[in-house]
Amino acid sequence: MCELLGMNANVPTDIRFSFAALARRGGATGPHRDGWGIAFYEGRGARMFHDPQPSAQSEIARLLRDYPLKSEIVIAHVRRANRGRVGLENTHPFTREIWGRAITFAHNGQLKGVKKLPLGLYRPIGTTDSEHAFCWIADRLRARFDTLPTPSALDRALHELCNELAGRGVLNVLMSDGRTLYAFCTKKLFYIVREAPFGVATLIDEDLRMDFSKETGPHDRVAVIASNPLTRDEVWRELPLGKLSAFRNGAMV
Amino acid sequence: MCELLGMNANVPTDIRFSFAALARRGGATGPHRDGWGIAFYEGRGARMFHDPQPSAQSEIARLLRDYPLKSEIVIAHVRRANRGRVGLENTHPFTREIWGRAITFAHNGQLKGVKKLPLGLYRPIGTTDSEHAFCWIADRLRARFDTLPTPSALDRALHELCNELAGRGVLNVLMSDGRTLYAFCTKKLFYIVREAPFGVATLIDEDLRMDFSKETGPHDRVAVIASNPLTRDEVWRELPLGKLSAFRNGAMV
Repeated sequence: MCELLGMNANVPTDIRFSFAALARRGGATGPHRDGWGIAFYEGRGARMFHDPQPSAQSEIARLLRDYPLKSEIVIAHVRRANRGRVGLENTHPFTREIWGRAITFAHNGQLKGVKKLPLGLYRPIGTTDSEHAFCWIADRLRARFDTLPTPSALDRALHELCNELAGRGVLNVLMSDGRTLYAFCTKKLFYIVREAPFGVATLIDEDLRMDFSKETGPHDRVAVIASNPLTRDEVWRELPLGKLSAFRNGAMV
Repeated sequence: MCELLGMNANVPTDIRFSFAALARRGGATGPHRDGWGIAFYEGRGARMFHDPQPSAQSEIARLLRDYPLKSEIVIAHVRRANRGRVGLENTHPFTREIWGRAITFAHNGQLKGVKKLPLGLYRPIGTTDSEHAFCWIADRLRARFDTLPTPSALDRALHELCNELAGRGVLNVLMSDGRTLYAFCTKKLFYIVREAPFGVATLIDEDLRMDFSKETGPHDRVAVIASNPLTRDEVWRELPLGKLSAFRNGAMV
């Protein structure tokens, strides 16, 4: 299994507090030591960091814990390998350009027989089931829309495609086109939306406490999605199962 | 204009010495302050780092100067913007998946009317001429080969495509599919091949000296390509103009 972390905000927001918790789960407080990756959207561009080292010991993860990159959409993943060797090419999030957009995808779960699904334009670089599933989604999206669809049209298409895949096993997914953060969940994903009045939160995985009221403006709104709650003193809600949740401007739409 | 740096070696090799020089040219010893990027191949995967900050001041560049990532193929670029705003989406190297391979491309020069070239599958995320040219190359390669061609077939195809583009202006390019480092040059690219007996070299841009004999084995061979020589006490040769040079296992083939 693996763990996912997603963030969507209505202003560029620093993910370091949440990432600190996730990174600990990659080999310290959790067993997901087989590499990790993170994508930060900045406008139409996305920065990606991938590392086959455990995130709890990774120098690159340490830099990201210290360096305040601000982004409106972030997707991160710590991996515990089941299908596909430990290696850079098998670390999530995966990315492909579709319609002139960087589309990113991270997955937790196993999908029976997914590699038998035929692929067209998009092909896996690594050997995970997850990347194969992503390429299948990318092909189907590209076949359906020749240019970037409206957000709501993409919401509907992705909901259908995820449901088609979900029959094969566990499909907990975070995905983005840089406009929307998508979460699909068949087993377990939690989320929280932080907005004014902001409070204080303490990580579960590390003795780290944050007073959000000191870091935010009155109109800021930040949604965080994670495989397991990251803080001990906030209420994390479960995402509905078998449904695509879309987050824009820091809120579920 | 921009500056390019490429490395191809027959064993995973640390690029930090050469990258230290290039990074200084991004805002300290050179004017290429409009962002930078680097791709490190590791097997079929590639790590990418992109930053719209000047490389001479970038925290991420500082990490890479300290952290010994070893790779057989590296492509790096420092940017001085002429077409396309300063932003993450316009930093090189650009990457696309073709035939299940991560293909990377970095360019120095201007290409007249290149944005009028029609595109198909692959579309730019940013607004540079360079990314448009890369998408055009990617489309043509994908149309010609349905699966990964042999290295020599790809050599020939890329030579033709680069020559077709070169009529439009300056085309200094570094490109890779993870097997071969390609360099195409219409104006100026220098290269050096280091092999036993290894000597000592001193950077031009920084007071940094390296004794390669202490860092290498007797069978190591490393080719380095750069827009301008990086060291003051070695002989850098110019790449032939209008010709695609292919490097494999640390040597020009």
